[in-house]
Amino acid sequence: MFNFKIITRTLGFLLIGEGLLMVAALLVSLLYQEGDTIHFIHSALITIATGVILFLFTRKASPTIGKREGYIIVSIVWVLFSFFGSLPFILSGSIPALHDAFFETMSGFTTTGASILDNIEELPHGILFWRSLIQWIGGMGIVVLSLAILPAFGIGGISLYAAEAPGITTEKINPKIKDTAKILWNTYLVFTVVETIMLMFGGMSLFDSVCHSFTTMATGGFSTKQASVAYWNSPYIHYVITAFTIIAATNFSLTYFSFTGSPGKLFKNEEFKLFISIILVFTLIITTGLLLTTDYSLEKAFRNSIFQVVTIISTTGYVTDDFMLWHPFLTYVLFLLFFVGGSTGSTSGSIKVMRIGLLLKNSYYELRRLIHPNAVIPVRFNNRAVNNQIINNVLAFFFFYIAVFFICSLIFMLFVDDYETSIGAVASCLGNIGPGLGQVGPAFSYSQIPDAGKWFLSFIMLLGRLELFTVLVIFSPSFWRR
Amino acid sequence: MFNFKIITRTLGFLLIGEGLLMVAALLVSLLYQEGDTIHFIHSALITIATGVILFLFTRKASPTIGKREGYIIVSIVWVLFSFFGSLPFILSGSIPALHDAFFETMSGFTTTGASILDNIEELPHGILFWRSLIQWIGGMGIVVLSLAILPAFGIGGISLYAAEAPGITTEKINPKIKDTAKILWNTYLVFTVVETIMLMFGGMSLFDSVCHSFTTMATGGFSTKQASVAYWNSPYIHYVITAFTIIAATNFSLTYFSFTGSPGKLFKNEEFKLFISIILVFTLIITTGLLLTTDYSLEKAFRNSIFQVVTIISTTGYVTDDFMLWHPFLTYVLFLLFFVGGSTGSTSGSIKVMRIGLLLKNSYYELRRLIHPNAVIPVRFNNRAVNNQIINNVLAFFFFYIAVFFICSLIFMLFVDDYETSIGAVASCLGNIGPGLGQVGPAFSYSQIPDAGKWFLSFIMLLGRLELFTVLVIFSPSFWRR
Repeated sequence: MFNFKIITRTLGFLLIGEGLLMVAALLVSLLYQEGDTIHFIHSALITIATGVILFLFTRKASPTIGKREGYIIVSIVWVLFSFFGSLPFILSGSIPALHDAFFETMSGFTTTGASILDNIEELPHGILFWRSLIQWIGGMGIVVLSLAILPAFGIGGISLYAAEAPGITTEKINPKIKDTAKILWNTYLVFTVVETIMLMFGGMSLFDSVCHSFTTMATGGFSTKQASVAYWNSPYIHYVITAFTIIAATNFSLTYFSFTGSPGKLFKNEEFKLFISIILVFTLIITTGLLLTTDYSLEKAFRNSIFQVVTIISTTGYVTDDFMLWHPFLTYVLFLLFFVGGSTGSTSGSIKVMRIGLLLKNSYYELRRLIHPNAVIPVRFNNRAVNNQIINNVLAFFFFYIAVFFICSLIFMLFVDDYETSIGAVASCLGNIGPGLGQVGPAFSYSQIPDAGKWFLSFIMLLGRLELFTVLVIFSPSFWRR
Repeated sequence: MFNFKIITRTLGFLLIGEGLLMVAALLVSLLYQEGDTIHFIHSALITIATGVILFLFTRKASPTIGKREGYIIVSIVWVLFSFFGSLPFILSGSIPALHDAFFETMSGFTTTGASILDNIEELPHGILFWRSLIQWIGGMGIVVLSLAILPAFGIGGISLYAAEAPGITTEKINPKIKDTAKILWNTYLVFTVVETIMLMFGGMSLFDSVCHSFTTMATGGFSTKQASVAYWNSPYIHYVITAFTIIAATNFSLTYFSFTGSPGKLFKNEEFKLFISIILVFTLIITTGLLLTTDYSLEKAFRNSIFQVVTIISTTGYVTDDFMLWHPFLTYVLFLLFFVGGSTGSTSGSIKVMRIGLLLKNSYYELRRLIHPNAVIPVRFNNRAVNNQIINNVLAFFFFYIAVFFICSLIFMLFVDDYETSIGAVASCLGNIGPGLGQVGPAFSYSQIPDAGKWFLSFIMLLGRLELFTVLVIFSPSFWRR
C-alpha cells in the first residue's frame, strides 16, 4: 500500500545528516574543552549508526515517493530528529530527563524557542551551540520544504501561491528542487553571516553572535542568556536583531529576488506591505501605551515596542522587556499577534500574514456580496484573482487553527490551573513563538509544566510547524483507506 | 438614493407596536398596585406619540422596501426599541441611569439576559414583567425575521437553507410572510403557555411561571430572582426549564413540522442530531468532572451539568450552579459552548450548530482533498450537497466572529483589568448568553462595569444578535455607494 521502504530509507538518510550536524557541535565543544565532547561523539555515533542501518537495510526500495509517503516522512522526521537530537542534552546531563530534553529539542527543530532551562549560562558552549544549530537547521528545513519540496509534489497549501520560488513558477511546477534549495540555502547563509558580523560590531562575542544569528534567521528565539536579548543593554543590538528578524519573517524567495536585481518587488508585494503595516500599527499602539503607563523614555518605549512586536509577529520570541508587566491591555494587544505570524515561505510559524490578508479581504467581499448577490467579485491578491479553492483552504485552515487552539487550551487546563497560562502556552507553542502568558510568560521558562504537559506541548509545536493539515491528514481515516 | 421615508414609516409603525406592549405591562402593574402604573402610562404615551408622528409625516412614502432599506430598518429598530423600552425603567426609578437602562433593555430585546440589577426582588411586578416581555418579543422578532422576513428579501444567510420554513420552500421563495409569521407566532405561544402550566405544577407562582416561560422560549435568561433558577430548589423545575430550553433552541419550523404530523423529521435533521449530541457529550464530561471534584450526588451533578450545558449552548444563561466555582477545566469546557449556540431559525444566538457542523465537515473534507486533490467532494448536510457559496459564507462568518471576539475583548480590557472578565463578558454578549466569566460570572451582575463599557457591550449584543453581517454591512462603504 505505502512504500514503507522508501520512507525508512529517506529517514535513514536524514538521520545520517543529523549525525553529521552533531559533529559540527562536537568541533565547537572541542574548542571550549568543557567535558561535553565525549557526549557529542556518542550521540553522533548512535545517530549515524541508526541512520546507516535504516539506509542499508532498505537498499532495494523502489524510488517512487508519492504524496502519502511525503506526508508521512515530513511528520515523522521532526519527531525522529527531536528524539536523536535530545541525545547530547541527555548524555551530557545538561537536561537529564527525556521529557525535558525532547521538549527542548522539538522546540528547537520547530523553531519555537520555548525552553525548560532555568540555568542557560551554566551549560557548556558545545551544548548551547547545538541548541542554536537545531533551530537554524529547523528553520531552513521548513523553508526548503515549503518553497522547494512540497511544491514539487503539488502540495504545500498557499506557500506555492505566495510568491514565485526561484526555479519554480506557479504556472509550470518543474521540480528543479535542488536548484531552488541551493538558492534558498545561500540566501539563508548570507544573511546569517551578515547578522553575525553586525552583532559583533555591537560588542557581542563571536560565539553569542553566531548563536543569535542562527536563532534570528530561524525565527526561533533560543538565546545563550537566561535573560534573552535583554542581557545586552545595547539599543544597537536590539535594532540589528529587529531588522534581521523582519528579514527572516519575509518570504525567502521574495528576499532573494529583491536582493538580486528587483528590489521593487518587495514593496509591490501585498503580503510584505501588510506585514510591515501591521508591525507599524502595533508598534504605534504599544509605544503610545507604554509612554502613558510607564516612565520609559520615548526611545526606550519605541525600541521595546518594535522589538516585542517584531519578535512576536515573526514568531521568534526573544525578549527585551517582560510584556506581562505591561498594562494588561498592551499585553493582550501583543497576544493578538500570536495569531498572525510572518510571511509564507519564511521561517516563521502561526497563521501567516498572507492568510490573514486573504481572510480580511474575503470577509469584506462577503459583505459586498450581501448587497450585490449576483456580482461575481473574486478576491484579488498581488493583482491576481485568487481561486476559490485557495480561499476555502485558507478559511478551513483558520477554523482548524482556532478549533485546535481552543480545544488544546482546554486540555492543557488539566496540567495548569489558570486559563491565562493555558492559552498563553498553547498559542505560543502552536504558533512556534516561545514565551507565553502567566506562568510561562517572558520572565519564566516551561520547567514547571508537568511532564505530560510537556509531551502535549511538544506535539502542539509540531502540529503548528507543519501547519496542522500535514499532521492531521495522517490521522484522517481516508488517508489510510483506498 | 435610499427610500428614507419608508424606513421612517416602518420604524414609526413598529414604535406604535412597542407602545402597545407597554400597555400590556401597564395592566400587570395595575394588578399589583406598586406605584409604577403612571410611569407605564407616560412611557406608552411617549412611545406611541413618537411612532404616530413618524408614521403620519411619511404618508406619501413609496411602499418599495429594498434590501438596503431592510438592513437599515433591522439594525435601527433594535436600537430604537431599546431607547424607548428603557423609559419604564428610567421613569419608575428602577434603573435611573440611561446607560444602565439601555444596557438592560438591549440585553432584553437581543435575548442576551445580561443584567446590571443587584436588587431584582425589590422591583415592582410591572417592571419585572416588562423586563421579561421584551425578551419574549425580541425572541419572536428574531425568529420571524430569520424565517419569514429575510427569506422574502432573498437574504438571511444560512437560516433559509437550514430547514423548510412553513409556507416557504427553498426552491420557491414565495413571500407568504404573513402566513409563516402567524404559524411561528402560534407555535411560540403554545409552548410558552404549556411551559407556564408545567412550571406552576412545580409550585412556581403564576407570575414567575409566565416570566420564566417568556425568557425560556426567547432563550433570554432574565429571571425574576437575583439567584436566577437556583432560587427554586426543585429538580422538577430545573428539568422542565431544561426541556423547554432545548425546544426553544431548536429550529422553529422544524418544531412546527414535528409537532404537526411528522415527528420523524426531528431525528432525521442533521442539525438537531448534532445539537443533541453536543449536549450529551458535554453533559457527560461535566457530570464526570463534578463527581470527581465535588461532593455532589450523581443526580445533582447530572442535573446541574445538563442545566448549565443546555442553558449556555442555547444562549439562555439561567444559573442553577455557579460554574466559576467549578474546577477551571470544567468552567472552560462550558466556556467552549459560548461559541456554539443553538439551531438556526431558533431564538438562540452565537455561531449556531449548523455552522459548526458545516465547519467541521468542510475541514474534514479539506483533509480528504489534500489526499485526492482532483476529486470533487461537495459537503453534504441533511442529505443535500451544500453550495460552495454557502460554505464560503459560513467560513467568513466564523472568521468575523472570532476576529470580532478577539478585538472586542482587547478593547474591553480598557474597561476591566483582567482578561478572564474581558473574554467572558464579550463572548457572553456577542453570543447573547448572559453570564460571563470572572467579575461578570454567574454570581455577579454587570453593574460594576464602567458606563462606557456598558455602551460598548450593548453594541456587541446587537452585533451578535444580527449575526454581524447585518450590522457590519451598514458600515461598509460599498453599502452607501451608488
